[in-house]
Amino acid sequence: MYFASDNSGPMHPAVAQAMMAADAGFQPSYGIDPIMDDVRAQIRGIFEAPEAAVYLVATGTAANALALGTLTQPWQTVFCTPLSHINVDECHAPEFYTGGAKLSLVGTADKMSAAELRARIEDWTRGDVHTSQRGPVQITQVTEMGRIYTLEELHALTSVAREYGLPTYLDGARFANALVTLDCTPADMTWKAGIDALSLGGTKNGCAGVEAVIFFDPAHAWEFELRRKRGAHLFSKHRYLSAQMRGYLEGGTWLEAASAANSNAARLAAGLRDVPDLEFVEVPEANMIFASLPRHRHDHLHVGGAVYRLLGDREGAADERVTMRLVCDWSITHGLIDDFLALARG
Amino acid sequence: MYFASDNSGPMHPAVAQAMMAADAGFQPSYGIDPIMDDVRAQIRGIFEAPEAAVYLVATGTAANALALGTLTQPWQTVFCTPLSHINVDECHAPEFYTGGAKLSLVGTADKMSAAELRARIEDWTRGDVHTSQRGPVQITQVTEMGRIYTLEELHALTSVAREYGLPTYLDGARFANALVTLDCTPADMTWKAGIDALSLGGTKNGCAGVEAVIFFDPAHAWEFELRRKRGAHLFSKHRYLSAQMRGYLEGGTWLEAASAANSNAARLAAGLRDVPDLEFVEVPEANMIFASLPRHRHDHLHVGGAVYRLLGDREGAADERVTMRLVCDWSITHGLIDDFLALARG
Amino acid sequence: MYFASDNSGPMHPAVAQAMMAADAGFQPSYGIDPIMDDVRAQIRGIFEAPEAAVYLVATGTAANALALGTLTQPWQTVFCTPLSHINVDECHAPEFYTGGAKLSLVGTADKMSAAELRARIEDWTRGDVHTSQRGPVQITQVTEMGRIYTLEELHALTSVAREYGLPTYLDGARFANALVTLDCTPADMTWKAGIDALSLGGTKNGCAGVEAVIFFDPAHAWEFELRRKRGAHLFSKHRYLSAQMRGYLEGGTWLEAASAANSNAARLAAGLRDVPDLEFVEVPEANMIFASLPRHRHDHLHVGGAVYRLLGDREGAADERVTMRLVCDWSITHGLIDDFLALARG
Amino acid sequence: MYFASDNSGPMHPAVAQAMMAADAGFQPSYGIDPIMDDVRAQIRGIFEAPEAAVYLVATGTAANALALGTLTQPWQTVFCTPLSHINVDECHAPEFYTGGAKLSLVGTADKMSAAELRARIEDWTRGDVHTSQRGPVQITQVTEMGRIYTLEELHALTSVAREYGLPTYLDGARFANALVTLDCTPADMTWKAGIDALSLGGTKNGCAGVEAVIFFDPAHAWEFELRRKRGAHLFSKHRYLSAQMRGYLEGGTWLEAASAANSNAARLAAGLRDVPDLEFVEVPEANMIFASLPRHRHDHLHVGGAVYRLLGDREGAADERVTMRLVCDWSITHGLIDDFLALARG
Repeated sequence: MYFASDNSGPMHPAVAQAMMAADAGFQPSYGIDPIMDDVRAQIRGIFEAPEAAVYLVATGTAANALALGTLTQPWQTVFCTPLSHINVDECHAPEFYTGGAKLSLVGTADKMSAAELRARIEDWTRGDVHTSQRGPVQITQVTEMGRIYTLEELHALTSVAREYGLPTYLDGARFANALVTLDCTPADMTWKAGIDALSLGGTKNGCAGVEAVIFFDPAHAWEFELRRKRGAHLFSKHRYLSAQMRGYLEGGTWLEAASAANSNAARLAAGLRDVPDLEFVEVPEANMIFASLPRHRHDHLHVGGAVYRLLGDREGAADERVTMRLVCDWSITHGLIDDFLALARG
Repeated sequence: MYFASDNSGPMHPAVAQAMMAADAGFQPSYGIDPIMDDVRAQIRGIFEAPEAAVYLVATGTAANALALGTLTQPWQTVFCTPLSHINVDECHAPEFYTGGAKLSLVGTADKMSAAELRARIEDWTRGDVHTSQRGPVQITQVTEMGRIYTLEELHALTSVAREYGLPTYLDGARFANALVTLDCTPADMTWKAGIDALSLGGTKNGCAGVEAVIFFDPAHAWEFELRRKRGAHLFSKHRYLSAQMRGYLEGGTWLEAASAANSNAARLAAGLRDVPDLEFVEVPEANMIFASLPRHRHDHLHVGGAVYRLLGDREGAADERVTMRLVCDWSITHGLIDDFLALARG
Repeated sequence: MYFASDNSGPMHPAVAQAMMAADAGFQPSYGIDPIMDDVRAQIRGIFEAPEAAVYLVATGTAANALALGTLTQPWQTVFCTPLSHINVDECHAPEFYTGGAKLSLVGTADKMSAAELRARIEDWTRGDVHTSQRGPVQITQVTEMGRIYTLEELHALTSVAREYGLPTYLDGARFANALVTLDCTPADMTWKAGIDALSLGGTKNGCAGVEAVIFFDPAHAWEFELRRKRGAHLFSKHRYLSAQMRGYLEGGTWLEAASAANSNAARLAAGLRDVPDLEFVEVPEANMIFASLPRHRHDHLHVGGAVYRLLGDREGAADERVTMRLVCDWSITHGLIDDFLALARG
Repeated sequence: MYFASDNSGPMHPAVAQAMMAADAGFQPSYGIDPIMDDVRAQIRGIFEAPEAAVYLVATGTAANALALGTLTQPWQTVFCTPLSHINVDECHAPEFYTGGAKLSLVGTADKMSAAELRARIEDWTRGDVHTSQRGPVQITQVTEMGRIYTLEELHALTSVAREYGLPTYLDGARFANALVTLDCTPADMTWKAGIDALSLGGTKNGCAGVEAVIFFDPAHAWEFELRRKRGAHLFSKHRYLSAQMRGYLEGGTWLEAASAANSNAARLAAGLRDVPDLEFVEVPEANMIFASLPRHRHDHLHVGGAVYRLLGDREGAADERVTMRLVCDWSITHGLIDDFLALARG
């Protein structure tokens, strides 16, 4: 009963097979393997973006930090939400890779609104040499609290950014989960919605460790390559990244895995509605559930073998409410979900 | 006939199997997987260093840059040879990860001598606030030209470093190949020879992408962990790094693979002695061969399907001499070596 | 009628004379001039801190950024208020000099409370490798809105910092103005109140451009010297910094100038109480006044030749209220103040 | 008898007077003072460069580091000589301000030749993502050993740079001394010779602490302003920098002071020709003299009260030869020079 994270499960079999299939003979190193040529073509096709610059790295933080480094000057600020991964979970990787840029926090919640974004940008209007200069807008889709921006919401945010001449970057660590929920095309959720660059996550959705970075404007390509090497993120045996991504995309494995993860979460959420004293903190929209319950119920689950995170994991009274985060990946079985629900109701 | 690099071949079967064996069920993320506990214990045992801090990253450049970042202040200089990987092949990753440290080049050749090291250190003796401050000594074993420092040579270098209070770091991308040549223990070649920290390479010797960073003084542990995360090099599905390293070390696979690579190179070198007009630039000591030959012979090999690098790959006259670099990994077959030799002699 | 800033006026005659007195003959460069020996002794005496490390730089931003760089690791966060100079007015100098540290904003106002500080520190309690690590607490005295922390308030803040093992840094660009208001000793307002390091501003109080950086723990001395040189802030003709500071401190010029500035502001504030429709945003406590008034009154002052800043300098309706910032230095004459008041009342 | 450095003397009276003349009343801060408008116009006129971007900073290291930061990407290398100030005397300020660029050392001597420059650039021709990328060429005029590049030599260097598309930066800490020797116009020695940007030193030639940074292409202006502020080098009371530079340039004071310094050095050199056992290391071309002599003669001078630097200041035998560096500024009197010569001959 492991709901701690979607980075705890195994590879999807199609990904593992692709990796093993690539594990024979000699191949050119450092990203010029023929498999990467396939991957680039795949991604350009999927995104209807024949000119896009496409690169692979092994971690989501690398994707975010390198992409933002490419889009941000050291004296600029990145606009993001307080809960964004780049602000909370990357130990200053964005600050490091941008050479000391700042993160300016938009709104107070997990999702930013266009009005909040505009207000925060206007906050920095002095435009003189003393203050932080305006930089990229960073949007996380699926958000850290499991929420999803609609296409209209994305469009509203990118319109504000465009108005101020700022580029937009989408942290797509759970890109596929969002796509499945919105039931739209990758192009719809990115460049057609005004997004300039994104990460396309593989790691949380069935890969061992691979994320694509995509710039719709290929002018960034060479600088990104230099930044990736300088950041020590260029793999010599790059084929093992390429192969994962090929296996992930080929035949729609990525969407199939995300569908499975989302529907696992839906099954879990449906069952949780019957658990006494449990309340959803956010309406689950993808593969994450945030719900509060009395601590004694949590203790019961914990003792029963359920593994998941509490937000603010502190000691407290038995009747105090705590918030749990449950994440489903594609590999969780219905059996485990049902066991968890039985335990929760018990 | 692929002799371009030891980062072009496949995984050793034992490594691939270990990776696949780890590919099931849920595991804690970010380096606290139980496999990593095994790896840490393995490495501490192999190095007779029960207190050592042990970490895994996916690239050799990450290992070098993060380790040097931990050992170097931004106003210090790293002492290394002009041909060292950190100087020539890492696109300023060391400068980036140290926050702007300098590399001070020792000697003019591939290997540094203790006298050259001392002279270079003395060069910076002013000790005032204006100049670069003295920092770590970086030693590459096997060197970029395929040479090996004897234990005596290592000891002489670390003695000079110690005299000036400077730490020593060993770039061990080909650590196993050197160990096989020297026929000594890992402890002999490291802390018993005065080395403070090292990378233990896996990628060039049968892994997909994994290097261990080892500090004999565990005081560096927490800072290294922060630097690794900030550098975006902490894997969420860390088990896939751990598993590679476990498969690599278990049962001596790493030494077996390095022996195979070295003896492949020896077989190749022996055969090359009969090739007309060919001269060895360096006496081959591990798994790399540098030899010069007339350009028309190179053209003949190239047309015949042999793949390898030329140093300074420029156009020129047919009788001009060029230098080729031939690298053998464990996976090259005797058949391919013999085919190459036949072609070279033809 | 120039109330734009206390960095717009001339040197105090005592400072100018000291500078000119030093302008003869040869002197050792780079901070080892004999005048600096005097300055060091003066400051150690004034602060009752015979061991303190004392350095001079030419700008307040240099003092802040270099001192914070010395006290902060790149993966740590500095706790400060949203309006602090380091957050709003230094174009990422703190991020640059710390190698990418973050600023964590405490509270919503100009002054932070101990409770707000504790809450913000607790926010980052996860203590794992993913999040920002806790770093120094930065306190501005006089604050950017002209307010002053009492000794009790300072003590409460530093007690919280100490509880978490965090160092405290005081941005003392207007140190003398605060000292005059609190009528206490420099030691009272610093190390006796738990402050570890500070800047002692000269520029805004009668110098041309000089600030002292003081560490009560001299262990930071050599690192600071290296950081100052690396930041290009070590003056070759350092005597011209030393001389300013000597003239500033000698005979109590610094306190006399700050008293004059504060009492100029008090006179101005007293007169403003009679201006119709004017309201103080903050009770003036040192040499700055923030007051709101209808835009048409501002326009009247502006046309009449008064020079000062508006917060959020935008177009608007004549009856909309705007907030003006009036700053007095020691050199403003009573005549100019009275002229301004006459204009304001007219 | 102070010949230690040209940063040890006082201000030229014309500079001191200009500074004092500016020390009255209120002036806008942060570089928009009217005196700066004059200075900008003066410099544009003197350099026949009506579009040039012109800025002031207080130290030569700041000028070099900020200008190179503007011209260099973090993954590029700066080409300079081993003895250059940026390599030897700036404690990694260039590395810091460029975000980790490398310095590639050209030649082995104090002056680089066009052939050496070309060879060093070609060394880095691989052009792949692994190695350092080519960046600006940095030329020091007067060199650290007191030598001067002729206009032909400058032109030859910039032609090589241009061929490779690399910008050129001139460290002009002693610009005026070189100009006097070459007897050419500032335009001749800069943009007409192919120089893209330079520092125009004031500090070593009669100012207290001011250097101009000049970009002939104004496209760099705004980035430089942001970098200057972020580096904490923007003076609030900027008028005191402007006033120094105005006093320095007005009426040709800068050239007059440099002429005096150079002719002081010529007088000293002429006299030294009669000193037994003394040999010039370099033919003196501006205001610096390097000469070797037996240690006992140095000891004699030292005991007699002469102050200057030895290169490599170590203990040794009385008849061992040591090299002394003698620097003259404008303020050394003929009397002191003659006293020194008498002592040297005695």
